Amino acid sequence: MKTARNTLYVAGASLLLATSPAMADDELASYRDRFEPLPHLPPLPAENPQTDEKVHLGNMLFFEPRISASGVISCATCHNPALGWSDRIPRAVGHNGQVGERNTPTVLNSGFLESQFWDGREPDLEGQALGPIEADVEMAMQLEHALERLAEFELYQEKFSDAYPGESDPISAKNLAQALAAFQRTLNTPDSPFDRYLQGDQNAISDQAKEGMVAFVDNGCIACHRGANLTDSQFHAIQVPGSTDLGRYVVTGEEADKYRFRTPTLRNVGVTYPYMNNGATETLEEAVAIMGQEMLGREFDDSTINDITAFLHTLTGKMPDFEVPALP
Amino acid sequence: MKTARNTLYVAGASLLLATSPAMADDELASYRDRFEPLPHLPPLPAENPQTDEKVHLGNMLFFEPRISASGVISCATCHNPALGWSDRIPRAVGHNGQVGERNTPTVLNSGFLESQFWDGREPDLEGQALGPIEADVEMAMQLEHALERLAEFELYQEKFSDAYPGESDPISAKNLAQALAAFQRTLNTPDSPFDRYLQGDQNAISDQAKEGMVAFVDNGCIACHRGANLTDSQFHAIQVPGSTDLGRYVVTGEEADKYRFRTPTLRNVGVTYPYMNNGATETLEEAVAIMGQEMLGREFDDSTINDITAFLHTLTGKMPDFEVPALP
Repeated sequence: MKTARNTLYVAGASLLLATSPAMADDELASYRDRFEPLPHLPPLPAENPQTDEKVHLGNMLFFEPRISASGVISCATCHNPALGWSDRIPRAVGHNGQVGERNTPTVLNSGFLESQFWDGREPDLEGQALGPIEADVEMAMQLEHALERLAEFELYQEKFSDAYPGESDPISAKNLAQALAAFQRTLNTPDSPFDRYLQGDQNAISDQAKEGMVAFVDNGCIACHRGANLTDSQFHAIQVPGSTDLGRYVVTGEEADKYRFRTPTLRNVGVTYPYMNNGATETLEEAVAIMGQEMLGREFDDSTINDITAFLHTLTGKMPDFEVPALP
Repeated sequence: MKTARNTLYVAGASLLLATSPAMADDELASYRDRFEPLPHLPPLPAENPQTDEKVHLGNMLFFEPRISASGVISCATCHNPALGWSDRIPRAVGHNGQVGERNTPTVLNSGFLESQFWDGREPDLEGQALGPIEADVEMAMQLEHALERLAEFELYQEKFSDAYPGESDPISAKNLAQALAAFQRTLNTPDSPFDRYLQGDQNAISDQAKEGMVAFVDNGCIACHRGANLTDSQFHAIQVPGSTDLGRYVVTGEEADKYRFRTPTLRNVGVTYPYMNNGATETLEEAVAIMGQEMLGREFDDSTINDITAFLHTLTGKMPDFEVPALP
């Protein structure tokens, strides 16, 4: 099937699409049906109702470096809005210049994930939020100390009270995590070219990207990278070049979990290089080739790699609005 | 004079100002005349003509962490727009968590300064811009390496060409410095309450702040903190608690320059704590008391300290517009 399709497209795709788009579109429709546009908001948990006050507080906290031991590292240091809400270096650099083991995942659309971190060790953003504050190689701040630091500022006393009205001691670990999670749930990128294509704008993506979409489905990439956020939120074994990371095994201790990692989102993958759990893969083309080899047992030819890469670039959405807060 | 004035004001200021503002204002006018509102732009040097393209590029570069050895420290790490374009820690934290010797000065209104750095070792922002990139305790990146890194990105090739049209090799140290300087010259805070007061809005600042303005003049603070940016750009000897920093002597080697520092601006001093060259002074009240003792040989009473502090808070302007850039 792949060969037949490639033959058809390589030989006549431009002509075909140019002269009889309805027919081509008809054929593409069954591929489009395998995808879903990204909603504007992820599911909002009943245990952490989304409010403007909480989001506003979370926005402040996300940019707050004084909840790190050095006083200069905030969530936004590694999840940098100027860099696709990630850091664009292989592995995260944290407290005292220590280099972590893994590539920083973007926080964009992270509210759509069914588990957090590469090894899925937390089920949700509330569970995720406090980890990097305490991690020795990241912000290296004891949680109690971080809360004390925040409580020193009248503005944070006010903002926590606004976000958690009626609580006698609102500056708590739970509320810190909830506010950060609430803010992160606003960091979504709907309306990417691919979303607009799925919603009927046939000119929103190039012919090459459409070929890439077809190759993405036909080669089985979609088996794991599926749904609105292009991840099944499941764990799959992979050992990419240079990585000895045991992945989910570190969390569960189960032999079967060795080298398994949660499928990452492909949303905004064009602006969240480098790739893989160890960030050792610089370009999207290399990443596509490696995934073909490691996960699908296929050697993609250059044309397929370029097509899939063109498709992946259509998953870059409009960066979310946010404000650099005025911290106290 | 100070006592007489205090007696007058403490006894009857509210009543006086409430019932005969013209008279009070008449008396205050001679004090107001000692100050100047902040212009919207500092002097723009003929050698670095300000253009939108240069400012845009400078904005990108200011937030660019990949011109640091770690890949995570940018100008905006220490000159953080969320923290008054400074860092609000005593002394700067840079590469591998190293702590520098001095408190980070804000870049706000730095284009109005007649020399740069606490010791005035560079005459202008162009001279200042490259220092922190190369400093071992800051970004720790060799300049050649930083330029090579930038040249890897097509977007920077474009933006440098846009900013320096006609140059065959626009990604140069000189142009990097010029772009950063051009951007920084846009980071000004006119229209503070005190500026509005100087421009005729008598209700722009409180009665206490007006008392503080009077005390600021009568006690001689204005001798050094004068002009639109409230600094004479001169060097004065001061040894604040805990500091052994030799100041300008490090630059000139002249005995007379020991412990001399360039007068810092007082613009936005309310949001750029902590204070002094070593950042050891936490509050503005303490800073005012220390300056009284060290520079003026006076023990200010609490009322004077509070008045001057109230005045200083009126020097906090509207934070400048800028954008978090989309980096390549």
